[in-house]
Amino acid sequence: MSTRSERDSFGPIDVPDAQLWGAQTQRSLEHFRISTEKMPVELVHALASVKRAAARVNLDLGLLPGPKAIAITQAADEVLADKHPGEFPLAVWQTGSGTQSNMNMNEVLANRGSELMGGVRGESRLLHPNDDVNKGQSSNDIFPTAIHVAAAQALAHNVLPALHQLRNSLQAKSEAFTDIVKIGRTHLQDATPLTLGQEFSGYVAHLDFAEQAINNALPGVLALAAGGTAVGTGLNAHPEYATRIAAELAHALQLPFRSADNKFAALAGHDALLFAHGALKTLAAALMKIANDVRWMASGPRSGLGEITIPENEPGSSIMPGKVNPTQCEALTMLSCQVFGNDVAITMGGASGNFELNVYKPMIAHNFLQSARLLADGMRSFEEHCVHGIEPNRGRIEELMERSLMLVTALAPHIGYDKAASIAKKAQHEGSTLQEAALALGYVTAEQFEQWIVPLAMTRPGAKG
Amino acid sequence: MSTRSERDSFGPIDVPDAQLWGAQTQRSLEHFRISTEKMPVELVHALASVKRAAARVNLDLGLLPGPKAIAITQAADEVLADKHPGEFPLAVWQTGSGTQSNMNMNEVLANRGSELMGGVRGESRLLHPNDDVNKGQSSNDIFPTAIHVAAAQALAHNVLPALHQLRNSLQAKSEAFTDIVKIGRTHLQDATPLTLGQEFSGYVAHLDFAEQAINNALPGVLALAAGGTAVGTGLNAHPEYATRIAAELAHALQLPFRSADNKFAALAGHDALLFAHGALKTLAAALMKIANDVRWMASGPRSGLGEITIPENEPGSSIMPGKVNPTQCEALTMLSCQVFGNDVAITMGGASGNFELNVYKPMIAHNFLQSARLLADGMRSFEEHCVHGIEPNRGRIEELMERSLMLVTALAPHIGYDKAASIAKKAQHEGSTLQEAALALGYVTAEQFEQWIVPLAMTRPGAKG
Amino acid sequence: MSTRSERDSFGPIDVPDAQLWGAQTQRSLEHFRISTEKMPVELVHALASVKRAAARVNLDLGLLPGPKAIAITQAADEVLADKHPGEFPLAVWQTGSGTQSNMNMNEVLANRGSELMGGVRGESRLLHPNDDVNKGQSSNDIFPTAIHVAAAQALAHNVLPALHQLRNSLQAKSEAFTDIVKIGRTHLQDATPLTLGQEFSGYVAHLDFAEQAINNALPGVLALAAGGTAVGTGLNAHPEYATRIAAELAHALQLPFRSADNKFAALAGHDALLFAHGALKTLAAALMKIANDVRWMASGPRSGLGEITIPENEPGSSIMPGKVNPTQCEALTMLSCQVFGNDVAITMGGASGNFELNVYKPMIAHNFLQSARLLADGMRSFEEHCVHGIEPNRGRIEELMERSLMLVTALAPHIGYDKAASIAKKAQHEGSTLQEAALALGYVTAEQFEQWIVPLAMTRPGAKG
Amino acid sequence: MSTRSERDSFGPIDVPDAQLWGAQTQRSLEHFRISTEKMPVELVHALASVKRAAARVNLDLGLLPGPKAIAITQAADEVLADKHPGEFPLAVWQTGSGTQSNMNMNEVLANRGSELMGGVRGESRLLHPNDDVNKGQSSNDIFPTAIHVAAAQALAHNVLPALHQLRNSLQAKSEAFTDIVKIGRTHLQDATPLTLGQEFSGYVAHLDFAEQAINNALPGVLALAAGGTAVGTGLNAHPEYATRIAAELAHALQLPFRSADNKFAALAGHDALLFAHGALKTLAAALMKIANDVRWMASGPRSGLGEITIPENEPGSSIMPGKVNPTQCEALTMLSCQVFGNDVAITMGGASGNFELNVYKPMIAHNFLQSARLLADGMRSFEEHCVHGIEPNRGRIEELMERSLMLVTALAPHIGYDKAASIAKKAQHEGSTLQEAALALGYVTAEQFEQWIVPLAMTRPGAKG
Repeated sequence: MSTRSERDSFGPIDVPDAQLWGAQTQRSLEHFRISTEKMPVELVHALASVKRAAARVNLDLGLLPGPKAIAITQAADEVLADKHPGEFPLAVWQTGSGTQSNMNMNEVLANRGSELMGGVRGESRLLHPNDDVNKGQSSNDIFPTAIHVAAAQALAHNVLPALHQLRNSLQAKSEAFTDIVKIGRTHLQDATPLTLGQEFSGYVAHLDFAEQAINNALPGVLALAAGGTAVGTGLNAHPEYATRIAAELAHALQLPFRSADNKFAALAGHDALLFAHGALKTLAAALMKIANDVRWMASGPRSGLGEITIPENEPGSSIMPGKVNPTQCEALTMLSCQVFGNDVAITMGGASGNFELNVYKPMIAHNFLQSARLLADGMRSFEEHCVHGIEPNRGRIEELMERSLMLVTALAPHIGYDKAASIAKKAQHEGSTLQEAALALGYVTAEQFEQWIVPLAMTRPGAKG
Repeated sequence: MSTRSERDSFGPIDVPDAQLWGAQTQRSLEHFRISTEKMPVELVHALASVKRAAARVNLDLGLLPGPKAIAITQAADEVLADKHPGEFPLAVWQTGSGTQSNMNMNEVLANRGSELMGGVRGESRLLHPNDDVNKGQSSNDIFPTAIHVAAAQALAHNVLPALHQLRNSLQAKSEAFTDIVKIGRTHLQDATPLTLGQEFSGYVAHLDFAEQAINNALPGVLALAAGGTAVGTGLNAHPEYATRIAAELAHALQLPFRSADNKFAALAGHDALLFAHGALKTLAAALMKIANDVRWMASGPRSGLGEITIPENEPGSSIMPGKVNPTQCEALTMLSCQVFGNDVAITMGGASGNFELNVYKPMIAHNFLQSARLLADGMRSFEEHCVHGIEPNRGRIEELMERSLMLVTALAPHIGYDKAASIAKKAQHEGSTLQEAALALGYVTAEQFEQWIVPLAMTRPGAKG
Repeated sequence: MSTRSERDSFGPIDVPDAQLWGAQTQRSLEHFRISTEKMPVELVHALASVKRAAARVNLDLGLLPGPKAIAITQAADEVLADKHPGEFPLAVWQTGSGTQSNMNMNEVLANRGSELMGGVRGESRLLHPNDDVNKGQSSNDIFPTAIHVAAAQALAHNVLPALHQLRNSLQAKSEAFTDIVKIGRTHLQDATPLTLGQEFSGYVAHLDFAEQAINNALPGVLALAAGGTAVGTGLNAHPEYATRIAAELAHALQLPFRSADNKFAALAGHDALLFAHGALKTLAAALMKIANDVRWMASGPRSGLGEITIPENEPGSSIMPGKVNPTQCEALTMLSCQVFGNDVAITMGGASGNFELNVYKPMIAHNFLQSARLLADGMRSFEEHCVHGIEPNRGRIEELMERSLMLVTALAPHIGYDKAASIAKKAQHEGSTLQEAALALGYVTAEQFEQWIVPLAMTRPGAKG
Repeated sequence: MSTRSERDSFGPIDVPDAQLWGAQTQRSLEHFRISTEKMPVELVHALASVKRAAARVNLDLGLLPGPKAIAITQAADEVLADKHPGEFPLAVWQTGSGTQSNMNMNEVLANRGSELMGGVRGESRLLHPNDDVNKGQSSNDIFPTAIHVAAAQALAHNVLPALHQLRNSLQAKSEAFTDIVKIGRTHLQDATPLTLGQEFSGYVAHLDFAEQAINNALPGVLALAAGGTAVGTGLNAHPEYATRIAAELAHALQLPFRSADNKFAALAGHDALLFAHGALKTLAAALMKIANDVRWMASGPRSGLGEITIPENEPGSSIMPGKVNPTQCEALTMLSCQVFGNDVAITMGGASGNFELNVYKPMIAHNFLQSARLLADGMRSFEEHCVHGIEPNRGRIEELMERSLMLVTALAPHIGYDKAASIAKKAQHEGSTLQEAALALGYVTAEQFEQWIVPLAMTRPGAKG
């Protein structure tokens, strides 16, 4: 393998000639051979977007000559177009400020930009990774800026659309199932009836709440640390740097980024990411509930509840022929557990800042972006391969509903709780129907029973009067 | 101990005559002898408020005779005035719907209300726990309503005021310390300077963010399940019940409660509490960071950083005479860890609903209200006994700041990153001052050095130009 | 309220005359008004046991005069006999070393011991809280010693016996249900049969594993920090202090306590508690699984699985007359979630030590002892009020088992997976029985079908040959 | 792209001709496009080992003809030799039983084995994925078997050796630093002295405990589910299958695998993995403590504690020239947080089994194996690039130690706690030395002071007498 010499303040180091990265990336590769998790591609792209915006701001402020700014911009565009996928090989488990990944980007853009300017890669390059590409920046403000950019994009362009797709699919089911009266279940025990459409309306409401939670948490994610530089004072950055770079990013990425009000807090803590991940966790909890309901309702096919049918997508068992399983529900509940775990990792990292810097940034980014990806992809998969094809088993639903003793609740306002309870108990212990028990006890007449116990009416008490 | 017989649908059971509770409370006491955690008093009060509101709504709707409604209202007022503190003895670890605590309240109000009406307590009482006190209600909607009421009160009347007290105290310190230039620390290593006031402004910003997060999460908590009754359909409740009871509670408690849009979701999940607890967790993470900074800055007195002095409140050691410790910081960080743990408990409970009901309600309430209490009390204690008395050690701060090699950062825009790095490295390895190293390398003149390296100016780069 | 003056190194302070505690307890009460969680009684008792042992060791070593040692011992015995329940009022949320609770005990024993010696309580007492009661000790080694003592007692005398009670009850059910063939369920879908006894044997195995895990974790908890004093060096303690106090505690409490090998680690970390709580968490996970199975099998009574009946202990609903719920399962799953949350709190605290001390001790103790109490009480309650009374619904079990299509699995070794799958699919899609589909496809004869598909035999494949 | 038709019970499906996988893998690829986490390579290898062992057992039992068994064995060996790295493309987020990954392996081995037998890949292959490769197996027992095999290998062959390397390196430091007396710190405040060697001995003790915890948890991981087949009864498996396959794996992999005592629990729960991950979590907590101590002791270089120097591996800042950071500590603490998060994910999954199967298997495997990889790699990196090069700054250590007021503790046994406290307070408030204050108060003579206060002796109280 042919190499060239690259140099940083620690001296020279050999780098594969085929690679655009420089000395600090190379050192990180050698010092952090830890597990398989790499800096997520969403973050690499966001960092390229930030560098691109910085170059444009530096140009506008007269701090960087036009050819240099243009070269950096073009090189960043290449990264954004995924033309250099192998150039960002660093582990998540590196320095806690993300400095090495910031330098990885600086080095790649400096070398590639130099080539675009007609120069070489390596020590004789025409762009300096620090003095040019990183101008007006520090890893301490730029890396969290990139995390926020990636997180905002993930929420706005991935999670929320996927949430919508699933929500609308559930809403369509809710409307389609509006006249199907089924047994309610509380404590897993038979309860008063509701419609299957009402049950699905609850799922829609869960997702609507999660959407609102994400939207409530988004503004904090849109506030950027850029301009704070090393410790939050903005040393070595132009006074307008912070607002200009936020505006540039807002324009380029079509999201309302703004400069964080207090840069000290923006470097030293990650409260906005913690809070936003709390919204993702809330979404995961709702998805877990929905997926569990779906798989229980689809349980069977013969010896479970069997109220709905879900799509059969693949053989379910390597030993039991003909078995079909609620595998989409399982993927969704597994990934929801992962989001709960990620939340703890993020919380511990977020709580552990000291003085002017929190040094858990790559770990927080890794977990946040993974959660967003899991939830977005998971919701889409669940919608397309499961919810979309849910069909009610009307006969089974009716059979289960009609057996229920909890229809007796409709009698309570007429004959009181205690008498109603004794009817239900008598029916259960004797294995009789409610009506038989009610008439035997003499608490109601057959006419009253039929008038008062009307399952569909019980699901629409407001409409009853 | 004298007893009377009480009765429910399971038959008669002996109850201590001195107690107002009835059969179901008694059964729960016997069946759930689990640990020492009782239903929190905030929740008991909230439940009394809900019952009071329900009685008034039932009266307005003509569903309950005046004397009964008045008796229930008066009995509830007594509970709210803490006149029956021993009457709510049930464990958190009971039925997951909170039915037993709902019935505990129904029974106490029925018996006490009966006495207020001139009747007796016990089976011949003039009020029925279910048919009168619980009229139009189910535990399934009323217990989560009470949790939301208690949670909203805790956030609005306890957490936020305490947060404000601490925030304002930190803000006052930030202003008082505005001219104290100190060394910045990133990665725990010496970094470029900032003022102590700027450092404290970061703490203020953390709390401002947490306040906003709580405020963003509050609307969900203000939405009430009442009116959904058993499964969310509102069976056995008047069509206007839901909106009227929310309005009544809003009026009585002076918080903008409203009826939840979808009652199915409001019974079957607790997303609003999960999301709001995410805000509390974010606050706890910020407090952990602040408390850690404070105790590190106060470390010493002789062999630590020693940049600030915190109040000496008590002897610190049973063996080391004269030792004083940052005990308020320790209480705050311990309780923050508890909040992180509570968050996991709440999340797991919140994710585990099935069909029409989530049966982790008492556990969720216990943890949410504990977190709120811990944070509110903890912030107040930290403010009064620590932050309020923080004093800077100006001499020590100046000594540490002047030693720092990272002042060299101010040279980088003038001589480039690489030369600046070699100055810092030379000074560190030779144990010399920055200026000595800079002049020895010939990269700057003495005049330039003094002009460019001005610590106070480095903290206000915007003001430099 | 009559008061007396007490004094510590901070000067005099008024203490209620009726109380035995002294100056430092009083200061803590005033400085830590945080929430309602008090130092758990198990820990107060353990601390009294430690002080008792220390006095005896000091006496044996000739470091404390006989009358003083005897007075401390007697006073500690009174505490252990619960004669001074109101004397330990301090919050969990205090100094992270537990110094204030250690001093609380020192002060109470000094004052009460003085009275037992014929002296007074207060400044003229005959015993000094530090020089006599705390002799050879520091909070830093004694408080974690007391936590370990309390934890070991909780595990050995509370959790393990309760676990055994539940395990034996499940074992008895497993044996009683040995001939009841039921449908298996994997992915919640119908699977091949097993006996109900086999299903319960799995529950027994879960508990056996948890018992072993606790036993594996116990040795670390039995290692005590006492003798390390302030930082682990044992300064101011006799060289034999460590081993003697462990031996004394082992003798007094009949548990094989020993002196920790390395006192620096024993003060600065709580690995043994973290690991042991991991065992408790594993137990909680098993209990959650068991309780969920039980409530699903008991779901109904008419529209659920209905395979077993559990005891009806109390009315289940405030609105639905006659409803009975699996409330013991709910309490158990709620408290399991609490244990999961506690685990996170303990982990974060345990990971956050610095240098010679971990200052999250009271929080860790609170959570550990709460988890032990919850699990022990919860298992007992679940056994007595639920498992003990579980009865199979044989008719329902047989009905569900016979419907199942997964009996087809027994054909696969004879006709291959693919043909077996097509039989199951045909039966499901046509709503026919397995036999009908099998014969229609011509893959087996009626004789073969009856010979190969024998549900009971399918549960004992080893016995088949 | 050239394709061939593959077929399963759902019918035909096109598969890329270049790939060895079959119909079910292809379906999973299309139905589970969720995030980027693939089935970990450790698990793929373990599954190949299990299939290899199964083929040999089937051969020995006369259930599979020699040529088929040999072909499966050879194909598995190729997988183990990493000759088919692109053939296991499935996501972690698939069916919760891992059936699709089990079938992926079955299909690859069937197609590749067929080729090795001189046959083709595809529908006309000479081996059947289910009837031959999966013979006597179900995903439900084989997938958890593979997880246990991978987990045991990761613990025994990766985590424990890395732990040893770090432990020994710390032990060497502890011995090298045995005579360096330094200030102790409790509550971050100056405390009585200890040697740097004693401090490092604490780190060694933490790791020794973690090693023991892992060893205590390992036996559960060595127990294998294989032989339980679909629901734990062992249907369609030879009665000796379970013990034979465990023995075969033990022989092949040189780890004492054994057959799990109860197969129902082994399929339906993952208690052994939960408990073992609790040991990993305990290790992570210890590492967090050690890494934090190291970075605080190395803080500076000029304005921190500065007691030790750690290796300078790379430039620390993109803006601050010459800055060096404790980056190995940061990687280690970040990955420890990840382990804490993974623990929660595993716990939630482990607690969520139903009836005969836990369907969170791939998620649990992913997290467990990631934690093991992170800890092993992280410890190695920390040892090689940080601990190995730690050097004490003797002058700084002595300077900080001599300043300390807590040396006064050595006076307490001679003059009592109260007088000793007043000496320390006087010195602190007047800025004087301890000796000056002690003499001024007249509590000791100069001779006594020098005799009693000997820092080195204070670190070895046992040796003092």
